[in-house]
Amino acid sequence: MNIRSGKKCFEGKGIQSKKDSTLRSKVYGVSLGPGDPELVTIKAIKVLARADKIYYPATLTRSGEVNSFALEILKMHSISETRLKSMPVAMTMSRKEVDKVYDKAFSSIMQDLENSLCIAVVCIGDAGLYSTFGHLLERLKKASVTVEMIAGVPAFVAAGASAHVPLALGSDKVLVLPDFESTDELDKCLDRYETVVVMKLSLFGEKLYSYLEKKRIGFVYAEYLGTPREFVSRSLNDLESRRIPYFSLIILFNKDQSSRNLCPEK
Amino acid sequence: MNIRSGKKCFEGKGIQSKKDSTLRSKVYGVSLGPGDPELVTIKAIKVLARADKIYYPATLTRSGEVNSFALEILKMHSISETRLKSMPVAMTMSRKEVDKVYDKAFSSIMQDLENSLCIAVVCIGDAGLYSTFGHLLERLKKASVTVEMIAGVPAFVAAGASAHVPLALGSDKVLVLPDFESTDELDKCLDRYETVVVMKLSLFGEKLYSYLEKKRIGFVYAEYLGTPREFVSRSLNDLESRRIPYFSLIILFNKDQSSRNLCPEK
Repeated sequence: MNIRSGKKCFEGKGIQSKKDSTLRSKVYGVSLGPGDPELVTIKAIKVLARADKIYYPATLTRSGEVNSFALEILKMHSISETRLKSMPVAMTMSRKEVDKVYDKAFSSIMQDLENSLCIAVVCIGDAGLYSTFGHLLERLKKASVTVEMIAGVPAFVAAGASAHVPLALGSDKVLVLPDFESTDELDKCLDRYETVVVMKLSLFGEKLYSYLEKKRIGFVYAEYLGTPREFVSRSLNDLESRRIPYFSLIILFNKDQSSRNLCPEK
Repeated sequence: MNIRSGKKCFEGKGIQSKKDSTLRSKVYGVSLGPGDPELVTIKAIKVLARADKIYYPATLTRSGEVNSFALEILKMHSISETRLKSMPVAMTMSRKEVDKVYDKAFSSIMQDLENSLCIAVVCIGDAGLYSTFGHLLERLKKASVTVEMIAGVPAFVAAGASAHVPLALGSDKVLVLPDFESTDELDKCLDRYETVVVMKLSLFGEKLYSYLEKKRIGFVYAEYLGTPREFVSRSLNDLESRRIPYFSLIILFNKDQSSRNLCPEK
């Protein structure tokens, strides 16, 4: 199967410029980037401007608050709330309950498509990397719905940029872990690869500081990227008594510290 | 060192809106994304609109042609050529000769900064991942020049999106290799991790097809992403007699084929 050959982007076509029927029988998976509203791509903005309805992921906290990074970004781009529909998932939900949320969103999208609406489903970071869009993608494919994914800036890529540190130079290898079983496993990864990213850092918890203190390796720690609460640091001092929140990640470097200007700081 | 805390992006500030002195004593490393001019971020466009001079990477082919993906993207965004300056590197150049090109660009940038010019250095993909900007970053840091990096969409992320295939779901681990020593090494990586990306795919050459035919794993092959010559495929048939060009990459999946809709096609 040849998916795409000879796309005409350089000839100035890009996405459809009119609300045609093609646009209305399609679901767009739109990556919003790591949090900073200016790190959204032009392509994403164009799709969002034309979408009749935009589904966005939201988190229900234990205290009943609804948090949504995606909603914050959409608001910054002045997208009317009348077009928005949330997919709220509680932190406490089981896999089965989460699936129900996405089943419901999928049914709603299928109804929208019958009504010839142009649908976008947004997510933070990139739609292909540990994204909420993944939950819907499988269902949409099974139903033979035409899908287009708009790639975005992953959070770990933005963390490296925020710290002015290249993730990979020359022959460096980069491993991205959503989580890890033990620090022994992490050590093995660091023996093999120059750069190791850990996405769900909160699982490390209080052990993070002692691990980094023992290893004495360069790192970039990032939380709440692109939001008013953003905090990016390469210093062990900053982490000594820091509570590691859910929205955090770390990039660990096993060598090449000099060329990255990454000698551990104390 | 606390790099950034409490950035005001959500409060609508973002990058400077006027040509102030801060802007003029800084070098921006600007990621242009994988090739499609619409996969550039708003932040990148804003910096490029204000930069007095934009350095871009170019390749001198053996036949003396100058190729530059970056230049194509800049032209699509109607950036005046008078502001552009190339950094041409020949495929045949030694490491030492390449260094000379970047030494020269660095000297030129230092001169520009003395003249209070606002400088951007662009690159394809993300500035932190195997980027030409890495060559200048080290020199700029040594000279204590203030640098800001604008993160972008990496090519392998865009390849996954073009094929509508998630790179990682749930607990999947992703390894990014610029190249590899042997197919044995690659096999070991595929034993350990769900997704393995190979960037400099042309090194595989004619062996790619036989390797994939033997392994029978899901993959996404991509070349010239976002250009009129873009070709993205998940089919072994398409690769049987294909010449693998320099601007190509592959994403290999070791399992979870069903959830990705990625059973190998023949």
